[in-house]
Amino acid sequence: MTYALSTTVEQTYSATVTQVRDALTAQGFGVLTEIDLQATMKAKLDADIAPQVILGACRPPLAHAALTAEPSIGLLLPCNVVVRSLSEDSTAVEAVDPQMMVAMTDNPALQAVSDDATTRLRAALASLGGSPVRAV
Amino acid sequence: MTYALSTTVEQTYSATVTQVRDALTAQGFGVLTEIDLQATMKAKLDADIAPQVILGACRPPLAHAALTAEPSIGLLLPCNVVVRSLSEDSTAVEAVDPQMMVAMTDNPALQAVSDDATTRLRAALASLGGSPVRAV
Repeated sequence: MTYALSTTVEQTYSATVTQVRDALTAQGFGVLTEIDLQATMKAKLDADIAPQVILGACRPPLAHAALTAEPSIGLLLPCNVVVRSLSEDSTAVEAVDPQMMVAMTDNPALQAVSDDATTRLRAALASLGGSPVRAV
Repeated sequence: MTYALSTTVEQTYSATVTQVRDALTAQGFGVLTEIDLQATMKAKLDADIAPQVILGACRPPLAHAALTAEPSIGLLLPCNVVVRSLSEDSTAVEAVDPQMMVAMTDNPALQAVSDDATTRLRAALASLGGSPVRAV
């Protein structure tokens, strides 16, 4: 089973974060949550990790359809998009693969919602101009 | 495969949200994100759903260990805890089952972290005094 849609772009982390936000907006996602993992690990553990942010992306009509089909689906929402620095000029962008919602719940009523979310997240990642988007 | 740890408590939604926050703190989790789904659905879609909140629970040492074992694991973090109203005096509390991290990634290096998180989330849910905690 795969759980991530992934691409790598040859540019800085900070430029990529901005680009990812714009790409999600263009595909109809709002960003409901944001966790700066590097800052969190530093503040809580004094641990140093590479720059990394978790963006919680939500397209409200899809979330509403998912909740209607599967009342507990909030456990798997929003769709996380991770941006993490690989080097000074290389950045990984990964989105949770919405197909895992169907796999985890074994609920075929989620298939249409998952397919729509997958199409949109793949398009957002592809628009970044990095390596071909892969499910990993 | 299960994806949720679940209990039902016979009390109001708002009292339960407060109790869940305290229970997570007692088990060493911070709440990094919070999504009021009822408010979000109303604001974005003018749709009415029962009161429901998604709390993003994170125990930093566990998150750090997970990131070290699986660089893409941010896609499955934080551990979501959902509180949702079933009726005026009955509320469901569900946590994502951390064992799904091992299942999704097929990475045995995450087993110890998942086991620790499972133990803590089960304890948090059990402390609410509701129905026996079940994996569903």
